[in-house]
Amino acid sequence: MNFFDVKGINAIEPGNKIDGFFLVKSIEVKTASNNKNYLDIMLSDKTGDINAKLWDMGPYEETSYETGCIVKVRALVSTWKNTAQLKIEKMRQAVEDDGVSIEQFVAAAPYEAEHMYGIISGYVDNISSNDIRGIVKLIMDKKRERLMYYPAAKSNHHAIRSGLLYHIMTMLSAAEKLMEIYTFLNSDLLYAGVVLHDICKVDEMDSNEIGMVSEYTVEGKLLGHIIQGIKEVESAAAEIGAPKETAMLLEHMILSHHFEAEYGSPKKPLIPEAEMLHYLDIMDARMYDFKKAVDDTQEGEFSQRVWSLDGRSVYRYNF
Amino acid sequence: MNFFDVKGINAIEPGNKIDGFFLVKSIEVKTASNNKNYLDIMLSDKTGDINAKLWDMGPYEETSYETGCIVKVRALVSTWKNTAQLKIEKMRQAVEDDGVSIEQFVAAAPYEAEHMYGIISGYVDNISSNDIRGIVKLIMDKKRERLMYYPAAKSNHHAIRSGLLYHIMTMLSAAEKLMEIYTFLNSDLLYAGVVLHDICKVDEMDSNEIGMVSEYTVEGKLLGHIIQGIKEVESAAAEIGAPKETAMLLEHMILSHHFEAEYGSPKKPLIPEAEMLHYLDIMDARMYDFKKAVDDTQEGEFSQRVWSLDGRSVYRYNF
Amino acid sequence: MNFFDVKGINAIEPGNKIDGFFLVKSIEVKTASNNKNYLDIMLSDKTGDINAKLWDMGPYEETSYETGCIVKVRALVSTWKNTAQLKIEKMRQAVEDDGVSIEQFVAAAPYEAEHMYGIISGYVDNISSNDIRGIVKLIMDKKRERLMYYPAAKSNHHAIRSGLLYHIMTMLSAAEKLMEIYTFLNSDLLYAGVVLHDICKVDEMDSNEIGMVSEYTVEGKLLGHIIQGIKEVESAAAEIGAPKETAMLLEHMILSHHFEAEYGSPKKPLIPEAEMLHYLDIMDARMYDFKKAVDDTQEGEFSQRVWSLDGRSVYRYNF
Amino acid sequence: MNFFDVKGINAIEPGNKIDGFFLVKSIEVKTASNNKNYLDIMLSDKTGDINAKLWDMGPYEETSYETGCIVKVRALVSTWKNTAQLKIEKMRQAVEDDGVSIEQFVAAAPYEAEHMYGIISGYVDNISSNDIRGIVKLIMDKKRERLMYYPAAKSNHHAIRSGLLYHIMTMLSAAEKLMEIYTFLNSDLLYAGVVLHDICKVDEMDSNEIGMVSEYTVEGKLLGHIIQGIKEVESAAAEIGAPKETAMLLEHMILSHHFEAEYGSPKKPLIPEAEMLHYLDIMDARMYDFKKAVDDTQEGEFSQRVWSLDGRSVYRYNF
Amino acid sequence: MNFFDVKGINAIEPGNKIDGFFLVKSIEVKTASNNKNYLDIMLSDKTGDINAKLWDMGPYEETSYETGCIVKVRALVSTWKNTAQLKIEKMRQAVEDDGVSIEQFVAAAPYEAEHMYGIISGYVDNISSNDIRGIVKLIMDKKRERLMYYPAAKSNHHAIRSGLLYHIMTMLSAAEKLMEIYTFLNSDLLYAGVVLHDICKVDEMDSNEIGMVSEYTVEGKLLGHIIQGIKEVESAAAEIGAPKETAMLLEHMILSHHFEAEYGSPKKPLIPEAEMLHYLDIMDARMYDFKKAVDDTQEGEFSQRVWSLDGRSVYRYNF
Amino acid sequence: MNFFDVKGINAIEPGNKIDGFFLVKSIEVKTASNNKNYLDIMLSDKTGDINAKLWDMGPYEETSYETGCIVKVRALVSTWKNTAQLKIEKMRQAVEDDGVSIEQFVAAAPYEAEHMYGIISGYVDNISSNDIRGIVKLIMDKKRERLMYYPAAKSNHHAIRSGLLYHIMTMLSAAEKLMEIYTFLNSDLLYAGVVLHDICKVDEMDSNEIGMVSEYTVEGKLLGHIIQGIKEVESAAAEIGAPKETAMLLEHMILSHHFEAEYGSPKKPLIPEAEMLHYLDIMDARMYDFKKAVDDTQEGEFSQRVWSLDGRSVYRYNF
Repeated sequence: MNFFDVKGINAIEPGNKIDGFFLVKSIEVKTASNNKNYLDIMLSDKTGDINAKLWDMGPYEETSYETGCIVKVRALVSTWKNTAQLKIEKMRQAVEDDGVSIEQFVAAAPYEAEHMYGIISGYVDNISSNDIRGIVKLIMDKKRERLMYYPAAKSNHHAIRSGLLYHIMTMLSAAEKLMEIYTFLNSDLLYAGVVLHDICKVDEMDSNEIGMVSEYTVEGKLLGHIIQGIKEVESAAAEIGAPKETAMLLEHMILSHHFEAEYGSPKKPLIPEAEMLHYLDIMDARMYDFKKAVDDTQEGEFSQRVWSLDGRSVYRYNF
Repeated sequence: MNFFDVKGINAIEPGNKIDGFFLVKSIEVKTASNNKNYLDIMLSDKTGDINAKLWDMGPYEETSYETGCIVKVRALVSTWKNTAQLKIEKMRQAVEDDGVSIEQFVAAAPYEAEHMYGIISGYVDNISSNDIRGIVKLIMDKKRERLMYYPAAKSNHHAIRSGLLYHIMTMLSAAEKLMEIYTFLNSDLLYAGVVLHDICKVDEMDSNEIGMVSEYTVEGKLLGHIIQGIKEVESAAAEIGAPKETAMLLEHMILSHHFEAEYGSPKKPLIPEAEMLHYLDIMDARMYDFKKAVDDTQEGEFSQRVWSLDGRSVYRYNF
Repeated sequence: MNFFDVKGINAIEPGNKIDGFFLVKSIEVKTASNNKNYLDIMLSDKTGDINAKLWDMGPYEETSYETGCIVKVRALVSTWKNTAQLKIEKMRQAVEDDGVSIEQFVAAAPYEAEHMYGIISGYVDNISSNDIRGIVKLIMDKKRERLMYYPAAKSNHHAIRSGLLYHIMTMLSAAEKLMEIYTFLNSDLLYAGVVLHDICKVDEMDSNEIGMVSEYTVEGKLLGHIIQGIKEVESAAAEIGAPKETAMLLEHMILSHHFEAEYGSPKKPLIPEAEMLHYLDIMDARMYDFKKAVDDTQEGEFSQRVWSLDGRSVYRYNF
Repeated sequence: MNFFDVKGINAIEPGNKIDGFFLVKSIEVKTASNNKNYLDIMLSDKTGDINAKLWDMGPYEETSYETGCIVKVRALVSTWKNTAQLKIEKMRQAVEDDGVSIEQFVAAAPYEAEHMYGIISGYVDNISSNDIRGIVKLIMDKKRERLMYYPAAKSNHHAIRSGLLYHIMTMLSAAEKLMEIYTFLNSDLLYAGVVLHDICKVDEMDSNEIGMVSEYTVEGKLLGHIIQGIKEVESAAAEIGAPKETAMLLEHMILSHHFEAEYGSPKKPLIPEAEMLHYLDIMDARMYDFKKAVDDTQEGEFSQRVWSLDGRSVYRYNF
Repeated sequence: MNFFDVKGINAIEPGNKIDGFFLVKSIEVKTASNNKNYLDIMLSDKTGDINAKLWDMGPYEETSYETGCIVKVRALVSTWKNTAQLKIEKMRQAVEDDGVSIEQFVAAAPYEAEHMYGIISGYVDNISSNDIRGIVKLIMDKKRERLMYYPAAKSNHHAIRSGLLYHIMTMLSAAEKLMEIYTFLNSDLLYAGVVLHDICKVDEMDSNEIGMVSEYTVEGKLLGHIIQGIKEVESAAAEIGAPKETAMLLEHMILSHHFEAEYGSPKKPLIPEAEMLHYLDIMDARMYDFKKAVDDTQEGEFSQRVWSLDGRSVYRYNF
Repeated sequence: MNFFDVKGINAIEPGNKIDGFFLVKSIEVKTASNNKNYLDIMLSDKTGDINAKLWDMGPYEETSYETGCIVKVRALVSTWKNTAQLKIEKMRQAVEDDGVSIEQFVAAAPYEAEHMYGIISGYVDNISSNDIRGIVKLIMDKKRERLMYYPAAKSNHHAIRSGLLYHIMTMLSAAEKLMEIYTFLNSDLLYAGVVLHDICKVDEMDSNEIGMVSEYTVEGKLLGHIIQGIKEVESAAAEIGAPKETAMLLEHMILSHHFEAEYGSPKKPLIPEAEMLHYLDIMDARMYDFKKAVDDTQEGEFSQRVWSLDGRSVYRYNF
């Protein structure tokens, strides 16, 4: 029995041996009932996650790996019912000569961050109100560095590197198209609302540069990205001397974009652009989740339950 | 003081005298505390409604008018605080020589019914699946006559003549645009879902030919347009011999389009096209209601509470 | 220490050795922390379920057993606190000479399926309306084969072989008695409603012939037995040319029998027979669950939590 | 135009003159906009209610009538749309020679109170447990006088004279029949539960002897009939020296019979007899309300909204 | 029959004539069914409100009175059942010689605004943290003028002149006492939280100087006093250079003080001082409402329903 | 490596060896995958809990220990990530010579039971109404023995020995202080309400004398401490001949103190003392839970989720 190179975690078949590079998503030393320590590791790549055990470990193993490093692994797929699991035979850290980089292992938006940032900036440049454009640009500049890699969520929709930019860009494009139909909407407000609605997620969550969020920040837990966003608009408006009415409308759009009080919006949308912003947001999130769930499912089958779709198992028809 | 011709009910100013034609929306004989009978009438035109009283009435007045007829009215605007009200001085039925027709008084979709039906048919003709296209066409043909004038609701969004066609047409156009972004969606299913989702409102409600719904039908109350729609799809699929899977998917889209059980959908959307159908539907209804509420409101003011927007008073900014 | 013959799983006492036949309800190969595979089996008979482990297994054991087969087991009851568990010493498939059949191991309704079907048919034959009787008979005939063994639910009340027939038969008998008191009820409608209300559970779930449901069907998940039942009535009514009013009333009874929207009924009962149908249904389900829970509990004690009784632990008084 | 004798309020036709006896349900002096006082009266008989006005009144009229008296009325039915209303021409108090008594005007249970009390006592006498029978009899004796005329509710189901006895009697009879099917139920507990569950409504509400409830009592508002009933059982059990377990089970049945916390039951039923008691109670209330609503409705029509049926308009089919 | 001087609206007895000064709370010209205009006025003083009609009016009456003016009224109490109502015989505006001022007619806090402001300032001066004290003082100074007369709500608890100061002062005093028991609480945070939690009600509502709120402001409707308060803290902290942690904790206290999302707090309290702030706030509001309701009720009776006590009718015992 | 004496479970550091006395909170024999039995023990002291395993056990170990005994343990802290766990090397029961007593290991209120009982009695003695004082004293005497050690809850706030007394005493003291502010409250009622509101927790739960609750009683599950408390008041009032109004008010306070129906109060508070009782109760519980959670958390960190604080993780600021 030979060890085969892995195509991707999703392609691992029970009963095989495999050989490949993976990202360490989490790692923990545990004690088995026979009183020996072993490593319990979650490995991942762009296609998914797999659990792995390293049973015979010495002091070296205990201290050599950490979350976020790349490892080369040789292993058996020891369990073949329901869920595959790796029994590691050999493991080492990746070195420079291996020619692998962390970006290869992390799910990311399908476009380059710079490219998406550029497109978004294009929309912003077309905002005709100097006040609105000024506020948006000021905040975007301030958050720019983190926007490059932040996901849009910790574990729901767009929880991928640069997922936040991707979410904003897609929503802007949908906004543009829908304004051809609902022509009474004010594009300055709507574009600004789209760019700003989630932008303080970069302050609400702690993400490393590969877009993995380990935790919420203290301010994120005590206030949340909606309140943080309102504070940013208030400061930016003061800085450029924008009228109170302008700041207030943008703040209202941020405040109301979750629509329901129980989801964090104490006020419901009271202007049409705020209402549309809400639907653009949820529609984009839902389409993302549906596409992902359907892609991971066989035709004629139902997906795993998707937490961010209220626990639904969605159906992939054969059509 | 002369009687001026009315521009429209919305333009009636307290303190004036007016002269004009109106549609009788409702009429009732009431007894005043001085023990005399009087007529309490709700008059309407395309721009709104106004209450009117005919105080001195004889047997002729009691029996000459009914809901749906056009009357010529000369009246004083007797109350000038909060709400204008007409005190009728003279009133008669409109006659042929007046050259007025009921269509002039009833709010209607901004496009001709035939035109909208044609556009919708164009989308349907482009459905590539023979089964889906066949089912949709069969049902559209069967409902065609009533589709021409039915509103989309009794008193909410699109409660205007031909409002149902207008709602479907707008949603098709939004669906087309959003599929440029969410390219994985199946256009056959989505277009069919849009056309069929509310089509049995023509069976659920009783509407006269000017699009005024007086009541729900018995079957409308006992089953509702969602269940009625599913039965139509089942029959149509049987008639053209479409596969069960096809009928099932269309039925599922109709069944789940209200999304929440409490709003009539016992199943949530489980295919992406059903999810998108829900958002197209609610977004179009909300944009319609917002536009109407904002149009009826002064800049810097809040609208009346809008029942179909969860009782919100929406804000018209001055921007 | 000898191995005793088992009286039934409910009678297994911790600390003993046992010898007996069981049904394999589920079986899975797992890997222990010492890296060896073992079999994790759920054994069952008419009296309950017990977990069992086969620790030392070779290739033979891995491939010889499957869900639904009967096995002979010799085992120790290795854990005596809280929950008993079997440590298997010997195990083999049952063979013809053992003289055991699967029916001996599966909980079933207390009456023969044919007998219950006959009683139900008797009620149906007494329906005086040709239309109603015709619709009910047509659907019963179509589902007859599966009705013989289907349970009434996957894991709640009447989740036993022929449980659906048992549920219907008991409800018919309760309906008959209550109509002696509430004499204004129409027996044709009520008997028809009882027979039809859950009949499409045979289309909603996949059951094997011993009444074990492994999964819901695709149509069951996308539409559900209520909608499936309405479609059946619509087809049957069309086939025999019954009036629309008749079909509509039967469809309304099916549609409303769960009463609450959140439990799948978008319309509440609007005729007295539909209201009564709801109470007959829930009362029979609740009595079944209460009796089962009380029977499994000692006097003066509380039962395990019963999921289908909203998680209640019910009390068995000593009286 | 002659004045015709009234058959009953439900038979009054707009446009007629009428002459008849009625019960004054409420009476109020109001001031009209012409600054004159008039009497606003609600008249009733067994078949319904009607509003009446006495426009020209002097000091005599103001002081001669009060709630609960019988009056002779000659009147015109002055309004003939939607709701009939009486314009009183002559009115006087009924005198002994008129030969009318209040019982003729008040809706009452279809059986004599003594008869129903006797039937209920028969069930109680058959309770085999001395303790349970003793508790029930003690409480029934104590409440006997008021039980004779109390309704079962202020304005919902069985809000008629002796309605409480009627409700109890019907439930006992349904309980008896259902125990033929659900044979494991303990009849002592169930009969006792039926008799006691609502018996403290006589302490919760203030009713006059014709079964009209004007108000809740102070204790009724601060504690409610469920808590009051538990206190009665506790006292009665102490008085006859019944075991604590017996009292506790009866108290639990009273406590849990509304089932939901939001309807007044902080504990859900935990013994089967308590569960059945709940269904007997709600089923009897619902059948009463449905029958009444259907009886008041034309075939093919929907009833008025019934508050105690969650606001439903129920349908009277033509079958 | 003489006209008696009024002691106060609460003391007006039906059947009398009265003579006195009142505040016009609202005034409207209406048209009676006899086609004449009349004035419909709501009069008020510190003890309550009463409705009044002026039936015979000329052009002078129509234009001489407005909301907020003081009038001298001579009137009959024309209706004596249920609710008293005034029939105005003579009415004129109060003049300087009458020696009446608006403060005499408006319910106000039982302490002078300056006195309460001083007490509150005393608590603030004792805050030991320069940052927290600085933020609180800056905001108090900015709002000082309006704080003097603003009520704490439009129509609920403390809806009286200077009600907001009164609410803050009472809460500070309760906070001080409870910190003797719950000694681990930080008094700087708690005192600051009490002062700031509702302070932006002066920005959320439009009040005239006698503490009558006619309307919410635009920003009040789009953002609300919680969000407005957070923005004030953010600005003040920036102005004095307070650390981010300090501002964040104060903002969190404001944000969470309504506790439930549905009442406007998207985050629940996460520090003990925020939790205590919530209970101080609701306890003070509830005690205010209970005292007012009980004071307006006879012993042994129940009060009118109090909207801000979830519609409860509270009981005044005789004890 | 030496074994160090333990300071307390909270002070155990991973990677050490320890030697100390602990209370056995629960103990279970389990079977490992290598088919050997081992002991799984939860050890506790006043500072917390820790899990321990005894891997090599013989018949002696299986039978020598039980819940509630004190053991001397020598162990390694074998796992050092996330949660510490003990691997027991030596263990024996504590003997008299060890000089340890169970009270040293159980969390208890910070005051002696007798002391707290005395303080509470002082408040009761000051109740001026003979009836109220009589009822309270009678019930306190009856429950005195169990009050000495009962906790206030099974696992929430004040779940410590004598926690119920501590809760009552603290609430009395807060009540006293708040009545200095809300002076219209009746102290007799409020003090009585505080003492009685939870007193039947001694009947609702089974606690051993060290304040550990293993289970609810049968009556506790079927009725609950609120109903049990009402029954006690009713009996005590009868015994001393107190007026019905007095008993009713005390019963109402007990009945309504959980405020919401879903938390066990079918009636909301209708007198001010009942309202205040509710806030005293919840405020004291919440302050207890917050203090405990904050004490167990590092500065700048969030606590574990606290179940009785609706699952919140509370924040310990560094201030």
